[in-house]
Amino acid sequence: MGAAILVSEVGPRDGLQSIASILSTEDKKRWITAQAEAGFREIEVGSFVPASLLPQLADTAEIVAYARTIPGLTVAVLVPNLRGAEAALAAGAHKISLPVSCSETHSLKNVRRTHDQMIEAAREIAALIKAQPEGRRPHFEGALSTAFGCTIEGEVPEAKVVDLAERLMAAGCDEVGLSDTSGYADPSAVKRLIRAVRGAVGDAALTGLHLHNTRGLGLANALAGLELGITTLDSSLGGVGGCPFAPGASGNIVTEDLAFMLEAMGYDTGVDLDRLIALRREVAAMLPNEEFYGFLSECGPPRGWRGH
Amino acid sequence: MGAAILVSEVGPRDGLQSIASILSTEDKKRWITAQAEAGFREIEVGSFVPASLLPQLADTAEIVAYARTIPGLTVAVLVPNLRGAEAALAAGAHKISLPVSCSETHSLKNVRRTHDQMIEAAREIAALIKAQPEGRRPHFEGALSTAFGCTIEGEVPEAKVVDLAERLMAAGCDEVGLSDTSGYADPSAVKRLIRAVRGAVGDAALTGLHLHNTRGLGLANALAGLELGITTLDSSLGGVGGCPFAPGASGNIVTEDLAFMLEAMGYDTGVDLDRLIALRREVAAMLPNEEFYGFLSECGPPRGWRGH
Repeated sequence: MGAAILVSEVGPRDGLQSIASILSTEDKKRWITAQAEAGFREIEVGSFVPASLLPQLADTAEIVAYARTIPGLTVAVLVPNLRGAEAALAAGAHKISLPVSCSETHSLKNVRRTHDQMIEAAREIAALIKAQPEGRRPHFEGALSTAFGCTIEGEVPEAKVVDLAERLMAAGCDEVGLSDTSGYADPSAVKRLIRAVRGAVGDAALTGLHLHNTRGLGLANALAGLELGITTLDSSLGGVGGCPFAPGASGNIVTEDLAFMLEAMGYDTGVDLDRLIALRREVAAMLPNEEFYGFLSECGPPRGWRGH
Repeated sequence: MGAAILVSEVGPRDGLQSIASILSTEDKKRWITAQAEAGFREIEVGSFVPASLLPQLADTAEIVAYARTIPGLTVAVLVPNLRGAEAALAAGAHKISLPVSCSETHSLKNVRRTHDQMIEAAREIAALIKAQPEGRRPHFEGALSTAFGCTIEGEVPEAKVVDLAERLMAAGCDEVGLSDTSGYADPSAVKRLIRAVRGAVGDAALTGLHLHNTRGLGLANALAGLELGITTLDSSLGGVGGCPFAPGASGNIVTEDLAFMLEAMGYDTGVDLDRLIALRREVAAMLPNEEFYGFLSECGPPRGWRGH
């Protein structure tokens, strides 16, 4: 068996926040349960943002409480600020991500916060976590979004990403992650940026990538990350979510295709592809008005694939 | 400027042979002209097979004669046997590919020929080429199809592919290429097979890959090839052609996305992405009933991309 790679399913958060359809709490629970049964060990189940901004995710506290009852599952959430982190702690999330946009223009537009304010938020959240009793301290990731470029600013300087990574680690994050929010990355850029950030914060502080497939390079970019020892890859079932900036364009990389690539290459993901394809059908039925992406589900694994 | 990579457009052959729509000779000429104007230096324009089998490509001789008038363009064709090669020579093709299926079952089903018969055909074609006056000898490639697995046989042993590569070179091919006809390859398999075949026939005898995107791994597989020094990649405009074995599943990798990946990584393809996207629209209008794949065309190159 090859090295273990964690496929972190972000559909219930990144997917659902980007579409118009609102999934019921019961459907979300069914989705998360079936995804865990298909072998997934980490799911980003929601985001603690005001319900007025993202009504799709208003039930995040209830979803976290439910997901915690699934044995062996790491329950991850996104928080935009200290208040969100307090809610995440109260609900019992195992992992908290604070997205910090490397493009300050994007940060101001998206969460109305400067870089200094976001670093301060990271410091407050880290302090809050430290104040919890041992065994109740969630893992805290600083997610460097628009790390490969921004639809408003265009190019984002590498030095800016490296600087923010250093400041997030100094503020008390357990690790940083690189997010290609706008689908601007290419395999060379992925390797270049991973090396630059690791040069500043150390290899152990950067183990995950959050890639989008906006321009079709998602899996090639994932491969570039794997070749540098990345061990966590975010993806969304059916690529659900799309790209808010380009109607018809894909958002997150597709979980099914990613899991197939990893398993075919000999990595150990723990994922059962047949159950995953069945899950896709189930979730597609819950979201009849949304587009589902990906290729594996059209034809299944190759003939001869572990009994196929 | 980075290393040069040749993107060989196979849409007019592999794409058109797999769809029901028949493109007029005039439309094919417009397509090929515009593709050359977008910077492409090699186009597989047709196949010399009996018109009764592939009426879509019945005008290949006329198309080759026309394409030869485009300055700087390498005009490539596929031939299934000696008779096809004679027609290709008469028409003046610059490059001839003979597909040899590594799965003998597939070979028998597809062209009713055993491996021995295909190797004999390669020998006859090589002799025919050698008999031509200098300057009129086309480049001759043995295309190892189903090299990564077959929808009938399943797994294809690496030793079989290596053996056929050696025999094709001994028969007089100038080089061999690896084709993932059924979309079974993954990045590890690509590297493994390239290394094995090169170990037998030498690095210079394997420089090209023909990849399909059936399970979504096409560009990741291309990246794996690039990392081992592959310099020619086949692709189809809009991924036109689909997969005859799985309705709705993609066929060839998408030229637009491949060219974007290569250019973004700093390779020199000579391709003008804006003209390429315009060309896609033009060809899509010629083929209103066919599905076009790919992502770049939905949102264009990133902001800041060479003036965007």
